[in-house]
Amino acid sequence: MTNRVDIHYCTGCRWLMRSAWMAQELLTTFEGELDELTLHPGTGGIFEVWVNGTQIWSRKEQGGFPDIKQLKQLVRDKINPQRDLGHSDRQV
Amino acid sequence: MTNRVDIHYCTGCRWLMRSAWMAQELLTTFEGELDELTLHPGTGGIFEVWVNGTQIWSRKEQGGFPDIKQLKQLVRDKINPQRDLGHSDRQV
Repeated sequence: MTNRVDIHYCTGCRWLMRSAWMAQELLTTFEGELDELTLHPGTGGIFEVWVNGTQIWSRKEQGGFPDIKQLKQLVRDKINPQRDLGHSDRQV
Repeated sequence: MTNRVDIHYCTGCRWLMRSAWMAQELLTTFEGELDELTLHPGTGGIFEVWVNGTQIWSRKEQGGFPDIKQLKQLVRDKINPQRDLGHSDRQV
């Protein structure tokens, strides 16, 4: 199975650096489990994260950005639910 | 037309940070022109850059990594050949 993450970010809001940081966190934590991670420049305040075509985060719906621990838990739940993320699995 | 960049990097060689840096450089320089940029973790010393399905860099063929100016010129040549990159268009 191919595991794919997509991050959509608003360029006008200057969220590239934030998105690239999250991309590196995910590619590091899920090394060997993620096959590709795509950054999608967008507009209008978009910030969304998708895993294998399912949306796991929307800034507009959730009212902000995910904590990086929370984001890793959400990705883990989609690609490898049995995996223990160690210190990233404590309560946020 | 959708413009897409793909960067394949070797995780064992620890080239994620280099690749993520190049990704941010390209997404910044080509804001409004690139639609997506995908990072592909790989193995075996791979470092390749593709634009719209055409390979523009291969570490194994070219014997190393591109200078960032050179990489921007190669991407520009594929997605907007008429564009002047300013100081990134001087001779390397």
